[in-house]
Amino acid sequence: MDFNIYITRVNAKLDQYLSAQGSLAKAMRYSTLTSGKRFRPILTYCVANIFSTNLNLVDSSSCAVEFIHAYSLIHDDLPVMDDDDMRHNQPSCHKRFGEAQAILAGDGLQALAFEVLVNDDLISADIKIELLKFLTRASFEMAEGQAIDLSIIAKQVDIATLESMHRKKTGALLSCAVNLGAIISKKCNNEDRIILDVFSKDIGLAYQIQDDVFDIEVPDALLGKNQYSDECKNKPTYPSLLGLDKSKLTYKNLYKKASDELDLLSVDATELQQLTVNLQARLF
Amino acid sequence: MDFNIYITRVNAKLDQYLSAQGSLAKAMRYSTLTSGKRFRPILTYCVANIFSTNLNLVDSSSCAVEFIHAYSLIHDDLPVMDDDDMRHNQPSCHKRFGEAQAILAGDGLQALAFEVLVNDDLISADIKIELLKFLTRASFEMAEGQAIDLSIIAKQVDIATLESMHRKKTGALLSCAVNLGAIISKKCNNEDRIILDVFSKDIGLAYQIQDDVFDIEVPDALLGKNQYSDECKNKPTYPSLLGLDKSKLTYKNLYKKASDELDLLSVDATELQQLTVNLQARLF
Repeated sequence: MDFNIYITRVNAKLDQYLSAQGSLAKAMRYSTLTSGKRFRPILTYCVANIFSTNLNLVDSSSCAVEFIHAYSLIHDDLPVMDDDDMRHNQPSCHKRFGEAQAILAGDGLQALAFEVLVNDDLISADIKIELLKFLTRASFEMAEGQAIDLSIIAKQVDIATLESMHRKKTGALLSCAVNLGAIISKKCNNEDRIILDVFSKDIGLAYQIQDDVFDIEVPDALLGKNQYSDECKNKPTYPSLLGLDKSKLTYKNLYKKASDELDLLSVDATELQQLTVNLQARLF
Repeated sequence: MDFNIYITRVNAKLDQYLSAQGSLAKAMRYSTLTSGKRFRPILTYCVANIFSTNLNLVDSSSCAVEFIHAYSLIHDDLPVMDDDDMRHNQPSCHKRFGEAQAILAGDGLQALAFEVLVNDDLISADIKIELLKFLTRASFEMAEGQAIDLSIIAKQVDIATLESMHRKKTGALLSCAVNLGAIISKKCNNEDRIILDVFSKDIGLAYQIQDDVFDIEVPDALLGKNQYSDECKNKPTYPSLLGLDKSKLTYKNLYKKASDELDLLSVDATELQQLTVNLQARLF
């Protein structure tokens, strides 16, 4: 199974959407088009594909989640936030364009995310509104999650607080990526939607716990950003609360649970199973 | 004619929308609910009202434009942008909550603006999409306008560049406020829409030129922010390019033109005429 077709596809569409955006285009293109793993758009395409949905209908949703993701990285990297100088093995947006342009590029990308969905002529207004309900909520929760993240630096928090923060900061958009793929798929019935929603929340949390582990175990060059950055910032993480071994076990169990859920779908979910395996097997 | 009923109305709705927004609520409420002239929501209500539109249908649009406006002020005031410590006669958001929370409160407000429109059950999906087309574009152009504004500091620019910047930075959202009122009004026909669109662009530009004049002529206490702030920052303004007298003449002519356009509408526009008079007669 080759998920690169989705990467190629979304990159071409992102490029197209970003081609005519005036004075902010340079900074937006720099942060959006230069690499990035594209997990979120791949998820959206993949969910839609297992329901045999025409991928032309999925492009705007895939790009919209990636635009929100790109905007969040730009703002999170700012000196007053996580203060990260490197992203995707290149200077982060504010290091390259200055903080003001970076903030505005992020602001522009958020608006653009909603705009590409709103203007997709292939989708009915009813479906667009359903997609936008998820995307607006996810985008809001992501900002909220980042606010909680910053507020708990150097604080003793329990695992429930950490989980709630991550479910907003990272989980909400990953879950949204899956849900958009489900909403856009005519053949996806209500039971399927519920299964996929649970699946999306499980991989969202698993993904974040795994990220916390990688922050300790994976060197800079592979991460594309600085290793130990959470630890240096005195951020509570799963390993800091649960220990490394239990953190690994937790995310592996979540991926297993997510994978089991896919067996309940009304369609063959082999492709999504494979993606879940790939997610777990990622090295960074 | 008492436009305060609109102010009271939008304040109550903004409060309601902001009442259950978790960890970002405090900063968002601080910047959104404490004063503000509410010109944009008043415009939206007023346009809808001259077409006898039920104002219950207008609340979400009015709040949406105000949320975008509030978000833009928070981000514009940041030290790396316009570096304004005061806003509406109180410390600006970042002075009160810190820069990180201010950026996130702005981010959250932008998402919320789209969300309130998306979730308004009184409006059909088709109309919502039409409203969102305007709002997403206006929000994007506003960020672009601010980027241009920062890029021309201490530079020699011509009047066309200055005008193009202002049409994006301030004009786009003011124009959007008028257009949303028109879209939501069943009795507003296509000719009316075109007239209102031209009207909105004229008052948008007039408003900004007037602001430039106020920056020179109105003391801090009335402005609610620092006088001469544009001049101190070495920003090109209409008075710096045209001189004070010609700037005044320009905005007065634009208001006059806008007012004349309203005479062409298919309905009695007395209320909107009065609002235009009030806009021009404002002291700050």
